[in-house]
Amino acid sequence: MVAPAPLVLSLGDPAGIGPDITLKAWAQRRDFGLPAFLVAGDPGALKARAHHLGLTVPLAETGPEDAAGRFAEALPVMPAGPASTASPGKPDASSAPCVVASLEAALGLVQAGRAAALVTNPLAKSVMYAGGFPFPGHTEFLAARAARPGRPAPHPVMMIWSEQLAVVPATIHLPYADVPGHLTIELLVETGRIVAGDMARRFGLARPRLVFCGLNPHAGEEGTLGTEDEAVVRPAVDALKREGIDARGPLPADTLFHPEARAGYDVAVGMYHDQVLIPAKTLAFHDGVNVTLGLPFIRTSPDHGTAFDIAGTGRANPSSLVAALRLARRLADAEAALAEREGRRAASVA
Amino acid sequence: MVAPAPLVLSLGDPAGIGPDITLKAWAQRRDFGLPAFLVAGDPGALKARAHHLGLTVPLAETGPEDAAGRFAEALPVMPAGPASTASPGKPDASSAPCVVASLEAALGLVQAGRAAALVTNPLAKSVMYAGGFPFPGHTEFLAARAARPGRPAPHPVMMIWSEQLAVVPATIHLPYADVPGHLTIELLVETGRIVAGDMARRFGLARPRLVFCGLNPHAGEEGTLGTEDEAVVRPAVDALKREGIDARGPLPADTLFHPEARAGYDVAVGMYHDQVLIPAKTLAFHDGVNVTLGLPFIRTSPDHGTAFDIAGTGRANPSSLVAALRLARRLADAEAALAEREGRRAASVA
Repeated sequence: MVAPAPLVLSLGDPAGIGPDITLKAWAQRRDFGLPAFLVAGDPGALKARAHHLGLTVPLAETGPEDAAGRFAEALPVMPAGPASTASPGKPDASSAPCVVASLEAALGLVQAGRAAALVTNPLAKSVMYAGGFPFPGHTEFLAARAARPGRPAPHPVMMIWSEQLAVVPATIHLPYADVPGHLTIELLVETGRIVAGDMARRFGLARPRLVFCGLNPHAGEEGTLGTEDEAVVRPAVDALKREGIDARGPLPADTLFHPEARAGYDVAVGMYHDQVLIPAKTLAFHDGVNVTLGLPFIRTSPDHGTAFDIAGTGRANPSSLVAALRLARRLADAEAALAEREGRRAASVA
Repeated sequence: MVAPAPLVLSLGDPAGIGPDITLKAWAQRRDFGLPAFLVAGDPGALKARAHHLGLTVPLAETGPEDAAGRFAEALPVMPAGPASTASPGKPDASSAPCVVASLEAALGLVQAGRAAALVTNPLAKSVMYAGGFPFPGHTEFLAARAARPGRPAPHPVMMIWSEQLAVVPATIHLPYADVPGHLTIELLVETGRIVAGDMARRFGLARPRLVFCGLNPHAGEEGTLGTEDEAVVRPAVDALKREGIDARGPLPADTLFHPEARAGYDVAVGMYHDQVLIPAKTLAFHDGVNVTLGLPFIRTSPDHGTAFDIAGTGRANPSSLVAALRLARRLADAEAALAEREGRRAASVA
């Protein structure tokens, strides 16, 4: 049996907490039961931050093939891109090429099958824009890079996952008032298909159970408290059911997130940001993971930003990155196991 | 020292779970450390339901003055109004006079100072409307009854309270799309004043700490994600601060409800139903209490409806009623203690 490919972690903004949490996570790798990963990017940024924090973290400059073997004794780093000159907590547009090079190198390993999954450290939109990066964030960049000529463009779907609760907002960074105009049957059906497909393929669920929150309080009380739940959400759920997907809704969102209710489904699709980010962060503030569904590879990230205000102080909490690394490994292993079963089945049929 | 007046509990819809949870709560009064209460209403409804459930609950027909003394051995009931003919789980418009009589009798005791606080069992809007009751619910009825000529009408404010979290939605049963049009500086200032006043007077908090959720995701990111947070919420919070109230906001709602965040405030004011009912019910589904602030008397109720589908089955959970009774007692005692301190201060000044 061949050892599985390691995870690859991008550096994120070198002035943010990405280096802090990367070093802290590796330092506690045994306590956390961390899967092997390698960082793609500027080793100098990690070295300097370790020194700044007073952490002893030996780095091993290596490629993915040796990362798992070295991981117990040193933090594997595959050098990529220019060195960063940014200081901790001082965002600087000149970091953008360093951030992009790390991300490109990490993505290249995943697309070549040399890494099993991509985990991204946080970047800052404002820094990247100022540095000429033409995407609003990781997700759009990865979707663009994953596009293949002649095929429909990937539709990335953000999931916030924790052991307690997995949620997907159907719309994300919209003003409150703009949400109803963006909710369409097509959007919800497409979102539901991607969620159901990825949950089956990567989360190892034979038949994932989806619930859809109503937009209105009490899911609109059959149309007396707003029309969208009957006009948009219900037809979308019905269309998904006709495709054989286990979907229910629209359901009143306020009674969907206590323990008994959560036991009844695998993922809750909300209509807008706060509707599902509120319960997700209420239940798992420190160890929520951002998972991008709908891409041809596995990508997770910590569910927080660059936190420039605490970068380099030693106060950054690595829990979310640790959870992102562990989940990425779990998803990669589940997908590999499924591929092996399907391969055996195909072989036995042939 | 005179024994404090007991709580008074209305019967609610006799076909709902009100009788079930009332009987169950009393039966476990010692386990729950229940404060003494008496029920105002038809004793026959309680007797019949106890028989139906196979519970042995002796009733003591009595007034409030003897209720505390009898409570250990029997469930005190002050007969009021006509008998109900409704069967468990079968809502019937003919119950409306029985429900109203119970509520009127209970309210009369509270207004006369013969009961320390009012706790209401759930009623069903549809039954009450069909029976000619001209109010959409308890709250509007109580506010109308509390009105006094020549004084501003009471402005009732709903709080959902549990040991974990207290929240107030500034708007409640509105379609999602109608919320922004209903949010005004005046509404938020008035709501904040009532919340701060009642938290100080009845919850025994010298200086209650209020936080206001932003309407938009991330509280609008300084106006780039929706305008209401800067145009409405912030000026309202600033106005409250100028009145000496400890108010903060608008704050991103998704990061307000994990344990560390909750430690920083006493009540969170949300802009709409799901924004605060979601975290409230995620954290305390079974023992949340509905408290009506802004009335000249204390009123709590269980945070659920009549649940006709399980009435008379023995499956109804009394936890929320128990929490409502315990909180009503706590608020009444805090208010009495404050009145005593103020009385002493006035006397020592005179």
